[in-house]
This record gives sequence, C-alpha cells and structure tokens, in this order.
Amino acid sequence: MPVFASDMLSSVAYAPDEILLALSLTSLVALTVAPWIGVAVGIVILVIVACYRINVKAYPSGGGDYEVASKNLGSGAGLVVAAALLVDYVLTLAVSMTVFAAYITTAFPALAPYRVPVAIVGILLICFAGLRGSRATPMLLAVPTYLFLGAVFLTMSVGLIRVGLGDTPHAQTADYTIVHSNIGDQATLGLATVLIVLRAFSSGAVALAGVQTVATAVPAFKKPRGKNAGNTLLLSGLLAALMLTGLTYLASVTGIKYVDDPHIYLVRADGSPVSAEYEQEPVLAQLAHAIFDNAPVMFFIVVLITALVLIAAANTAVEGFPGLASRLARDEFLPRQLATKGDRLTFSNGILLLAAAAIVLVIATSASATVLIQLYLVGVFASFVLGQAGMVLHWRKRLRLVIDSKTRVRMHFNRVVNTVGCVLAAGVLIVVIVSKFLAGAWLAVVAMAGLYLVMGAIHRHYSRVTRELAPDADVNSRTIPSNTHAIVVVSEIDKPTLRALSYARVTRSSQLEAVTVAVDEEAAADLQKRWNQMELPVPLTVLGSPYRELVRPMLAHILAIRRRSPRDLVIVYIPQFVVGRWWEHILHNQVALKLRTRLLLVPNVVVVSVPWRLKSFSRQYGGDGPDSDTSLYRQA
Amino acid sequence: MPVFASDMLSSVAYAPDEILLALSLTSLVALTVAPWIGVAVGIVILVIVACYRINVKAYPSGGGDYEVASKNLGSGAGLVVAAALLVDYVLTLAVSMTVFAAYITTAFPALAPYRVPVAIVGILLICFAGLRGSRATPMLLAVPTYLFLGAVFLTMSVGLIRVGLGDTPHAQTADYTIVHSNIGDQATLGLATVLIVLRAFSSGAVALAGVQTVATAVPAFKKPRGKNAGNTLLLSGLLAALMLTGLTYLASVTGIKYVDDPHIYLVRADGSPVSAEYEQEPVLAQLAHAIFDNAPVMFFIVVLITALVLIAAANTAVEGFPGLASRLARDEFLPRQLATKGDRLTFSNGILLLAAAAIVLVIATSASATVLIQLYLVGVFASFVLGQAGMVLHWRKRLRLVIDSKTRVRMHFNRVVNTVGCVLAAGVLIVVIVSKFLAGAWLAVVAMAGLYLVMGAIHRHYSRVTRELAPDADVNSRTIPSNTHAIVVVSEIDKPTLRALSYARVTRSSQLEAVTVAVDEEAAADLQKRWNQMELPVPLTVLGSPYRELVRPMLAHILAIRRRSPRDLVIVYIPQFVVGRWWEHILHNQVALKLRTRLLLVPNVVVVSVPWRLKSFSRQYGGDGPDSDTSLYRQA
Repeated sequence: MPVFASDMLSSVAYAPDEILLALSLTSLVALTVAPWIGVAVGIVILVIVACYRINVKAYPSGGGDYEVASKNLGSGAGLVVAAALLVDYVLTLAVSMTVFAAYITTAFPALAPYRVPVAIVGILLICFAGLRGSRATPMLLAVPTYLFLGAVFLTMSVGLIRVGLGDTPHAQTADYTIVHSNIGDQATLGLATVLIVLRAFSSGAVALAGVQTVATAVPAFKKPRGKNAGNTLLLSGLLAALMLTGLTYLASVTGIKYVDDPHIYLVRADGSPVSAEYEQEPVLAQLAHAIFDNAPVMFFIVVLITALVLIAAANTAVEGFPGLASRLARDEFLPRQLATKGDRLTFSNGILLLAAAAIVLVIATSASATVLIQLYLVGVFASFVLGQAGMVLHWRKRLRLVIDSKTRVRMHFNRVVNTVGCVLAAGVLIVVIVSKFLAGAWLAVVAMAGLYLVMGAIHRHYSRVTRELAPDADVNSRTIPSNTHAIVVVSEIDKPTLRALSYARVTRSSQLEAVTVAVDEEAAADLQKRWNQMELPVPLTVLGSPYRELVRPMLAHILAIRRRSPRDLVIVYIPQFVVGRWWEHILHNQVALKLRTRLLLVPNVVVVSVPWRLKSFSRQYGGDGPDSDTSLYRQA
Repeated sequence: MPVFASDMLSSVAYAPDEILLALSLTSLVALTVAPWIGVAVGIVILVIVACYRINVKAYPSGGGDYEVASKNLGSGAGLVVAAALLVDYVLTLAVSMTVFAAYITTAFPALAPYRVPVAIVGILLICFAGLRGSRATPMLLAVPTYLFLGAVFLTMSVGLIRVGLGDTPHAQTADYTIVHSNIGDQATLGLATVLIVLRAFSSGAVALAGVQTVATAVPAFKKPRGKNAGNTLLLSGLLAALMLTGLTYLASVTGIKYVDDPHIYLVRADGSPVSAEYEQEPVLAQLAHAIFDNAPVMFFIVVLITALVLIAAANTAVEGFPGLASRLARDEFLPRQLATKGDRLTFSNGILLLAAAAIVLVIATSASATVLIQLYLVGVFASFVLGQAGMVLHWRKRLRLVIDSKTRVRMHFNRVVNTVGCVLAAGVLIVVIVSKFLAGAWLAVVAMAGLYLVMGAIHRHYSRVTRELAPDADVNSRTIPSNTHAIVVVSEIDKPTLRALSYARVTRSSQLEAVTVAVDEEAAADLQKRWNQMELPVPLTVLGSPYRELVRPMLAHILAIRRRSPRDLVIVYIPQFVVGRWWEHILHNQVALKLRTRLLLVPNVVVVSVPWRLKSFSRQYGGDGPDSDTSLYRQA
C-alpha cells in the first residue's frame, strides 16, 4: 500500500499552502473559511476514491482512466486521457521536487537562494535511480510514507490537544498582517470573494492527483488486485482527507499567514514590512514550528520526513511512466519500440524526456509550486471526468447483459456513484479552468492538445502502414524471383573481401561475380593482376570510372543486370568493418554505407554486409571467433 | 595565367599596409625605409619564384611542396608541409575576405561598423559558389586580375609621373603625426629598430603566399604544364615585386601614415587627435585618393577592382582545397573517402570545414588582417623551407644518376638556386617566428602541430589495418562455410515479411525457418494460426520472451544454431522499411536496427535487410518497380 499512496499522501505537504495562498487575496472571509475548504476537498477526495474503488475492480489491468475511456468512449477520449496522464507524470515529478526543494530550504535556510538547483538535482537523482533500473525495494519506499503518516498525525494530535486544553499554539506569522494593493469596491468584491473561494477549493483539490497513480499501479498489487488496490485507495483517501482537514483547521487556529510574495503582502504588527531575509516556510513546517515550540528538534524531523515522502512521490512518476508508455505504444499511439518493457535503451530515452520536461518546467516557473499546480489540475480532473463518464457507460452496457437482480442492484449503485463522481469532477474541472486558465492552466491545455495531435498522427501513420502492408487475399499471386545473381564488391584483396567471397560462394547463386571500380586505373590493373595470380574461383569485373567515382559506376552496373534479367534477385555482398572507436567510423565504411543506402531504392536488390571485426574492436569488446559467443550474448 | 595569379597579385592590396604598419612603431627610421623594404621583399619574391619555376618543372603533378618534401625528405616532412598547406588554405580565405571587407568599407563608409559581417558573408558566398560546383569560367576569374593589374599600374604610372613632374601627390594622412606611447631609451631603441625593420620586412613577405597556389595548380595549366606554370610564376612574381616596390615608394613619397589604431596613435598637425569617425583606409586606397585627387571616381574604381581581385584570390583557396585533400587522402593522411574527387558530399563537408575555420578566425581577430597575416606567414615559409630543402636533395640524387655534362651543369645551377631559396626562406621563417611568435604566430604553429598529429594518427591507423587485413600467404588455408542456415525474422504477416520469405527461399539454403518472438503471447498464438492458415511453405518457430524482450531471445536462438553447427553460415533476413520522412525513422526499423547491430558481433552470421519502400517514400522520391530504375539512377 504505502508505495503507491506516497503520491496521494504527500499532497498534504502542499495542498494546505495552496488553500491559504488563494484565500490570502481577500481580507473579508479571512482564514476562517480555510478549514471548511479543507472539509470540502476532503469530501471530494472521498467521493472520487469511492468511484475509483469501482474502477479498479472493473478494470484491474492498470490502464486506469485511459483504459476506461478508450473502451467505453472510443479512442478519441482515450487519447485525451493519455495526453492528460503524460502531462501529469511530468507535473508529478516537477511539483514533488519543487515542494521538496521548498522543504529542504526550510530545513537549511542557507540553501534558500538555490531552490531551483536543488529541485533540478532532485529530479536528476530520481531519474538516475530510475535509469539504473535498480528498483528500490518496496520496503525502502514504504518507510518514508509510514514516517510521514506518523509525523503528520503526531503534529495534528499534539496541536489539537493543545487547542482543546486552551493552549492554542501561536504561529510565527500570526502577528503579521496581510496587506492588499487593490481590493476594489464592494460591488465587485462579492463576486471576487466567490471566485477566490472557488480558486482556493480547486487549489486544494491537488490532493487528488495521487488517485490516478494508485489506479494505474493495480497490476503491482497482490491478488485480488482490484480489491487490494481499492482498499489502498480508500485508506489513503481517508487519511489524506483527514490530514488535509486537520492541517487547514490548525493553520487557521494558529493564525498562519501564507501569501504569494511575503515581502510585498506581509507586514509586521507595527506596520513595518518583513525583513528582506524573511523566507516563507510551508504551512506544515510553520505548524510544526508552532505546535512543537518547546521541542525545536521536532520541526526538523517533520520537515525532513516530508522531504523524504516527496522523493517517494516523485519516484512513482518515474516508475509509472514506462507502464503507461508501453500501453500507449501497444495501442500504437507512441513509437512501437516503447511497447517492449525489456527495451532498456528506449525507456531510458523516455525517462530522460520526462526529466527534461520537468526540469524545463521547474526553471520556467522558478520552482514555484503554485504555478505548477495550476497546470497539474487540468490534466488530473480532465482524466477524472472522462474516466467516470466511461464508467457510467460501462455500467449501462453491463446492465443490458445482466438479469440477476442482486447484481443489477449493485451495478445500479455503482452507476450512481460514478455519475456523482463524474459530475463532481466536471464541476471541479470547470472551476479549475475558469479560475486558473490565465494563471497557467492554458499551458497544460496546450501541452495536452499538442500530445493529442502527435499521438493521433502516430496512430494514423501506423494504421495506414498496416493497411498498406496487408498481404493480398490471393496468396498464390505471390511470385518468387526466378534466380539469384550475386555480386561481391571488391576494393582491395584483403581478408574481409575473401570472407565476403566465400560467403557469396556458399549461397550458390546462379551467377556470381566480383566487381571493382577502377577509380585509379593503375591500382585497378594491379588488383586484376593479383586476382589472377591468386587463382580466385570467381571472375572479377573491372568497371571504368572516368570521373573517379565509386558509387555511380557500381550502381549503373547493378541496374544493367536488373534490366537484363528483371525477375532475378540481385544480392550485393559488401565487406563491412566493425570498429572499436567512434572516430574509426569516419575512416571506414563510408563508401559501403553510401552504396548500401542507394541500393535500398532499387527493386529486387538486397545488400549483405559481411562484417569484419577489426582488432581495435576485439581489444575493446572481446575476442573474435565462436568462443566469444557467450560473452557477446552477455553484452546483448 | 590570371586565374592562379590572382592570389599572388592581390597581396599587393595588403602587403604595403603591413610594411607601413610595422614601421609606424618607430619614429627614427620613419617611412624612408619603407621603399627599401619593398625592394627587399621584391627580391625575395624573385628568388623564390626562380626556385619554384624549377620545382614545377621537376614535379608537374600539382603536389607542390608536399610532394617534393614527401619524396625527398620522407613522409614526416611531407606531413609538416601538408599541415602547413591546410592551415594556409584557411588563411588565404580568411585574409582575402578580411581585406576585401576593408576595401568594401572604404568604398561604402556606412558599412564601417560591419566589417566582420561583411567578411563572413564574403566567405559564405565564395564557399557556396564552390559547393554549387559550377566552376566559374576561367575567363570570368581572369577579368578581375587583368582589371587589377591595369588599375594598379595606372595608379602607379600617374603617381610616378606626377612625382617626376614635381607635382608630388599629397596623401590625406600626410599632415597627421604618429605619436608613440612608450618609445623607451636610446639603448634599446637600436635593437628595437632592427626588430621593427625585420618585422616590417616579414610582414611584407606575405606577398609570397600566392606562390604555393600556382605550384599546386600545375595540372590545370595547358601543356607543357611545368613550363607554362613556371612562366606564370615568373610573370606574376615580376609584376608583384614591381607593384609592391612601386606602391611602397609612392606611399612614402605621398607621406601616407598607417597605424594599428588611428584613434590612439594619430594626431593632426595641430596636435589634436583625429575625429572619432575617422576610418583608416588601406594604403592602396589612400594612394588612389592622393594620386587621382582631380578625378575622385578613379578612387572608387581602384577600390572596387581591388575588392573583386580579392574575391578571385579567396576563390583559389576553395578551388585548390579539394585537390590537396584528395592527394592527402590517397596517401592515407585524411579519410579515404576524400580521395575520390567525384564524391561531392564529402567535398562539401571539406569546404564547409574550410569556411567554418575561416569564419572562426575572422571573428576571433575581429577581421584584423594584421593579426591574420602573422598566422599566415609561418605556414607559407615553413613549406617553402621544406620544399626547397627537398629540391636540394632531389638534385643531389639526380646528379648521381646523370653523366651528360650539359644536363649536369643545368642541374648544378638549379641546385644552387634552390639552396639560395632554401636559405632565404629559412631566414625569413626565423625572422617571422622571432618577430611574430607572441603576436599570433604561435597559434599557427599550434594548429599545424595539431593537424600533423591527427593526420599522423590517421596514417598509422590505415597502415595498421592494411597489415591486419593482408591475406595469409597460404591461399589454400581459406575455408568456406559448409552450409547455410537461413532465418527470416517475422513480427507480422505482411507484405515485407512475405517478400523476405520469398527472397530467403530463392537462395536455397540448406535450412530455412521463420522465427518470431512472442512478446505478447496472445498475439503470437494468433500469428501462428494465421501462418498455418496461409499454408506458407516455411516452418515458423515461436520463441518465448518471459521479459517481453525482442532482441535477446532472437540472439539466443541464433547463438544456439551457431553452437550446433559452428561451420555453417547463418543468414538472417530482416524486413526493413524505407521511409520518406525523417520522423518515420523513429516509428520504424528500431528493433531491426538493434538486432542488426548485435548480429554484427557474431561470427559467421550475416544480415540481409530486405527493403520495403513505403508509399510515403514513393510519393516523395518517385515510384516503385523496375520502371523507376532510371529515375533512381539519376538521383544516385
């Protein structure tokens, strides 16, 4: 459980901040609204979790909303969800590491000017660990989650007990006042307040981002997978809702102020602005400060554990990404080579892309969690809506097929739950888009649209190629070439050429000739002479090259053969050097490569590269000969 | 003649400037020394030209000093000359275009702030013309040379006549005075003066750079080549010496001042500094100004003709470079593919490299001809010295073989000329290195050393590979594989696979099997079923892949075959897509490419790529089928 829950639970490290921040814009409702928003978000969490318990049981293969939407709403909707999920993986990584950097700089204020580098280093380390493929043992990842749960509940309990005993803790920022530059007149204020409250609510809804992680991780659960995943969802949903509500309540009781730019919007009790060195701490850190004012060490423990759990949360993005990519590749929305999970190289590229995108976002937003979360919410709720809508249709289809009344009742109930979830998610999505579009959500929409178009184009390409390549119905119409005509390309009488000759001879073609191009007439005459002296059992054809070219005369010769006997297969043997060092590529194989590329375009011609491993290669990668097969296999 | 002479003749557009500039550092000898330095350089030109008339007759193949040094002093010396010549080609281009920019900005003062961009655009245009391969007709290139000769001699004649008539022209800068920041005491001044005069002399020696161009262009002359090239050298040498002496004389008579930075070192007659807008004109331009003070249009004509001849000079570098590269490649000092002149692509790369190096130099020196010429001289004179030394040895060897006394007398005479040339060139080289080393000559030495090392390494690599690949003396020890085992890699039953199957069948291997990897077990079972339904005449082997990998199980299968029958040749047929758009490469062939790369390492295995041209390819590059052979050939 704890491995996949870390993403969801860790959101309480930044969701309360976003709620307070959004509310800081209005002085009227003040912070008394905050706990109620926490409660509202908590309720949404519980509803959505209830929906997803149904989802994961109905679709336990780990496809999540993508699978639900594809199967019930068609591939278009599935593609929208896929685009949303890809964007969300990037944002999970970026947001987690941005908040991680915020906590680290809270613990070590000396690092405060380096928040962006800290976040980038965090992303790189996590992706590097992911690339190494040494999947951290679940236990190792479970530890931060348990520690985090313990730390938050301890903080909450102590805080609530102190409030109950009348010894309400007093936050550092409680004495500060929030100033507003432009409050506007009373008329617009009413509407603005509603908007602000809605925005605070939608910001808090980021706590829901982790639901998707659990839903796509179903195959990694113990059997019965759907049930276990559902339980994990329920439990972590309950815990997250509880923690969120508790922390926002405590934040308002202790008087915590959290604003966008403390040096502009915060003033001390005496009206003087906060000092230039003042660094705003995350809400959880401020709470730990206030609640454990007698035990400062607890502050550090809470902050460091939170940083740890954020690493675990970011890790779920890196671990989950290959699975989604593989599924999308199998459905031909991404390049096919991503489909085989064993292909480490390709996945490395995927993870590097993930890291690069996250780093770009961190730099572009100067490691601002607030801005990143605007982007995050669109994708999260767009996929909720489509996933739930898909489930509603799913149940309608299923109800048509089932007559057992008890099952029907359960299905009807599920359909109601999913409908409620869909409407709720749609409501939040509308609130998010309305209240956040200009604040950055448009970028997420653009990114999703871009991915949608690219994946759609890839899909159409593969479909077109599949149609193009389908064998004709009349199997007998297939003809095979009547004969083979083998050509060995010779530039020098050396071991690779002799090997190519012997390979060409063993395939017993109807015709076999060696061909050389006389770029230098003297050298060609000398080659011909040595060829005869060695009594090689294959005739050598020397092609003239008035313009000292290699490829063109060879191509002309092959085209002439093609014209003489169009139904023959022409097999061209070209010796190729396997080199050990990169710069040796510049010195060898260039002409062979060019000839080979040109010959790809001529019908009924195939090229056989006869490899010759240079000593420089063997020195670097192991010996030549059959003995080395095992070592080569190990490399492969 | 004029085509190859343009490089040499154009040097009078900047050699006088360098002489005056070097002399401007001392007030004692003043400008009266200038004409004598012009005379000294003129004498050096004549001696070196006399030497090279002998060279081009003895070695008329166009190898120039490289050939002379290689054949007589060994490949080490030849390599030094080769490095020097490569550096010189870059500098011919860079210097010509820098001076070109100076003349252009003299004609259009509005362009003065854009000297560097003008020089870069010039380099790009010349290289682009070279890349187009549309070699300008010799006539077109001859015109600027003749015009330039006409313009300079007209200027000189009018100037000398006016001096003779007592109507000495008066240069714009004659009224200016050169100020010196640090003149130092009298004791060091004597030595300093000697150094300054030597430096002025060596700067003027840049007029000799063009000799090499003629020497390497011998094969382009009409027969008898050696004689014609010799005459061209003599004529252009005489003309250059005459022009240089005349122009420096006139420059000193008209009182031209030419300094490094006019805003620091030049003051007006009344002691006030020159205005901030003052742009120093090249000496030839100042002369044209002074001499044709009654006909200002002549100034523009002279300046524009000079710019034209500098373009022609730069063009010789671009045209001459491929010849040198080809010769070096044939001697295995550069990658072999450069050896065939017809290989346009490779030469394009060479010319682009040439242009890039020249542009870097222009930018690094802010288009300062003075600095670039420091670099230039080292290479020019280093190759002179080695070339002449080689000729001295050449005559010694030849004298041993010849007994005809008349011939011997001629040879003795030649040897004396070459010895004088060698000593003289060595003297200038020492002066250049001593007086210019810190001013920039060190960079030329470093570049030459770098090229020397790289070319040496390439040569050693090729030699080692040649030794490694030499066939064993005992021809009979060569064995050919006993049988062939053909494998067709199948991932789908489509047209490319069926084509690969039919190709594999026509080669009649002893064993033939189709092999597929069951990445997805369901899909593999389905494939097997369809395979059987289609009654394909080849058995299909399905390999299990517990880790959803493609390459590894296939490789293991092939290695197993190799172990069972180590003397067999395994032929692996892989369908390959030929795509029309770059991004389609990402979507296709990735697994095939990987398998192919791995199989290069397994002994006695060859890969046959069976190409299938997708429609997207045909749409872009023309149709499929034998009819299109001609169009394909035209492309090739």
